[in-house]
Amino acid sequence: MTARLRCYRCNETYHPPEQRCVCGEPLWFDVGDGFAPDPDAPGLWRFRDLLPVDDPGGLAHAAGGTPLVRTSRLDDYAGCRVHVKDEGEHPTGSFKDRGTAVGVAAALDRDRPAVGTVSHGNMAMSVAAYAAAADLDCVVLVPADIPPERLRIIAQYDPHVLRIDGDYGRLYDESLAVGAETGVTFLNSDSPLRVAGQKTTTLEVLSAFRPEAPDAIVMPVSSGGHASGAWKAIRDLAACDALPATPKLCFVQSAACDPIAAAFRAGDDAVSPTTPGDTIAYSIANPDPPSGTRALAAARATDGAVVSVTDDEIRDARARLARDAGLCVETASATSLAGARRLAADGVLAPDDRVVLVATGSGFKEASAAASDADPPTVPLADLQGAVAGRL
Amino acid sequence: MTARLRCYRCNETYHPPEQRCVCGEPLWFDVGDGFAPDPDAPGLWRFRDLLPVDDPGGLAHAAGGTPLVRTSRLDDYAGCRVHVKDEGEHPTGSFKDRGTAVGVAAALDRDRPAVGTVSHGNMAMSVAAYAAAADLDCVVLVPADIPPERLRIIAQYDPHVLRIDGDYGRLYDESLAVGAETGVTFLNSDSPLRVAGQKTTTLEVLSAFRPEAPDAIVMPVSSGGHASGAWKAIRDLAACDALPATPKLCFVQSAACDPIAAAFRAGDDAVSPTTPGDTIAYSIANPDPPSGTRALAAARATDGAVVSVTDDEIRDARARLARDAGLCVETASATSLAGARRLAADGVLAPDDRVVLVATGSGFKEASAAASDADPPTVPLADLQGAVAGRL
Repeated sequence: MTARLRCYRCNETYHPPEQRCVCGEPLWFDVGDGFAPDPDAPGLWRFRDLLPVDDPGGLAHAAGGTPLVRTSRLDDYAGCRVHVKDEGEHPTGSFKDRGTAVGVAAALDRDRPAVGTVSHGNMAMSVAAYAAAADLDCVVLVPADIPPERLRIIAQYDPHVLRIDGDYGRLYDESLAVGAETGVTFLNSDSPLRVAGQKTTTLEVLSAFRPEAPDAIVMPVSSGGHASGAWKAIRDLAACDALPATPKLCFVQSAACDPIAAAFRAGDDAVSPTTPGDTIAYSIANPDPPSGTRALAAARATDGAVVSVTDDEIRDARARLARDAGLCVETASATSLAGARRLAADGVLAPDDRVVLVATGSGFKEASAAASDADPPTVPLADLQGAVAGRL
Repeated sequence: MTARLRCYRCNETYHPPEQRCVCGEPLWFDVGDGFAPDPDAPGLWRFRDLLPVDDPGGLAHAAGGTPLVRTSRLDDYAGCRVHVKDEGEHPTGSFKDRGTAVGVAAALDRDRPAVGTVSHGNMAMSVAAYAAAADLDCVVLVPADIPPERLRIIAQYDPHVLRIDGDYGRLYDESLAVGAETGVTFLNSDSPLRVAGQKTTTLEVLSAFRPEAPDAIVMPVSSGGHASGAWKAIRDLAACDALPATPKLCFVQSAACDPIAAAFRAGDDAVSPTTPGDTIAYSIANPDPPSGTRALAAARATDGAVVSVTDDEIRDARARLARDAGLCVETASATSLAGARRLAADGVLAPDDRVVLVATGSGFKEASAAASDADPPTVPLADLQGAVAGRL
């Protein structure tokens, strides 16, 4: 455990509350070179040796510890041997709880009076919930046109919600400046605290495969924070001499908004902002990802890839996850399966590869995305036996 | 592990597929007298010594293993020291996955071609999902007037859904008869396989408190299957000499449909069917609970209680769970907090008692139940700092 921050690219070191290097790239926390998982600790706290905060108890005990499921019925579709890490099984239904648990713990440690975030989706729900449980003030900055169904979920935790009239894209930087002035710890997409929490997704995956390692980990990428966490997990374990092999890190975007995949395809060293189109995977449509270049570096450093998939591919993958794996995932999460299928077709993944798809969030928060044309037959009770037998 | 069934009341033994004793009461599985938890097994399979089936792998690995969260901000409201077992953190968002995982494993073991259930809510979603993952045919019997939002969630897993035109209350028995004829393993509310899985909720709670024990466990009760499982867990551990103390089992119903609570209040030995009224806790409104009398016996045997609460109390408790604990629970699950508050007011629970509330399901599947009157202010971006400072 250390409070020193470092730039992955130029190796410069800093201390909190710095978040970015002078070179422009985002920072992450250094760890020590020792690591012994604590099997009796709840959730992600089994990796406390690699975290920058102590376990604060309470709701933080429900962050991490999600199941890894072997989903063999998806193998043919994906073109590889599929395991799914079901991150929807969190108190607020997404992997965001990992970063939030670490961020709120840090805010409590530092006696900061409040936390905040810039989000109108999973991150907002997560920060609001953990702040509520910890009795911290919480500020959530949402766009003026936030859909009412998402506002309802956020508002139930009773944070201070502010609709922002103006360029929502500027809030990443503006909120950090406001936080410095007001004492609010803003836990934005790729804050070093959040990335420290989010690396535990991959620490758990690698732990489950010990003493071997999966061949690849495939996950959606938006801001690049979770993707950065995956790379950090691999680097941390390598530094502790606890990495049997390096899995390929493969990241997936929606074709309608794919600045990181575009940079990967073009062989660029840095990600440039793009103009987003509409996509059903709205929650990963970040046109100017603050950790995009770091995610790009992660894919290259691990012999992985960044690909994009169409809405039709995402829709089909979402339906397959339900019908063939029993998993109801958020639309954006289905990009992991669609991406794996694309990567297998491209030869990046092989049929025998053991591949972990990260299903980043639950589909139950957007139930209207599920099949809506169901119209099952009506059967008189007296005809039940014949009707059942006729379906088998 | 044994395939012998027993009646809790008259001690008569049976073998599957029997489900009820000649005395009329439901059966449950015997266990051996040895028990060593396997800490490396996933989810509920750490208790495999106490289960009637072997771990089938796949989605079953995601059943059980839910977090237990200390929620101190609820203590004053509840009148005791509150921990919440968050059963919403399952693939289909409820504790039903525990019973389903065991039931589907048994169907696979027996080479039965199909599973089925009688449900229009959590149980239907759960059986459909696990059947899909295991590549089993699945028959789901729903009422003709099932709300479309629930039908959508069930249908995404692609089971054979049949709307039943007739007395839905008769389907519990009718489906078992049809199952015997057609080879479909019907996993209804209190089938012995389901109760075997559902007892693991309480096995996990008791395991988390070792070497001590909680003073009470409070959970909603409907059919009585989950409540029976709680009692079975206590009896199994006592038989294995692994129960430090017996927690009070306290069950909660909606006042609009409370046949078990009515029998408890009246001092009756058996539960009689009631005429149900409307309640927001629709998913626990069973007017003729098939394991109601067993649940009643469980409360009495453990010095517990069965109480009922009003819709206003349930609504208030649901909001408190979100605002003070960061937990978005199904409306029916909030009865556990409302019930604990009532029990503390009645002197059944004491302020120092360590009490586990079982939050049986996620609120994300009924998001419209969350606060709907949120109307946060709109703030120009230029005024952000003042607006944030003004909220602290």
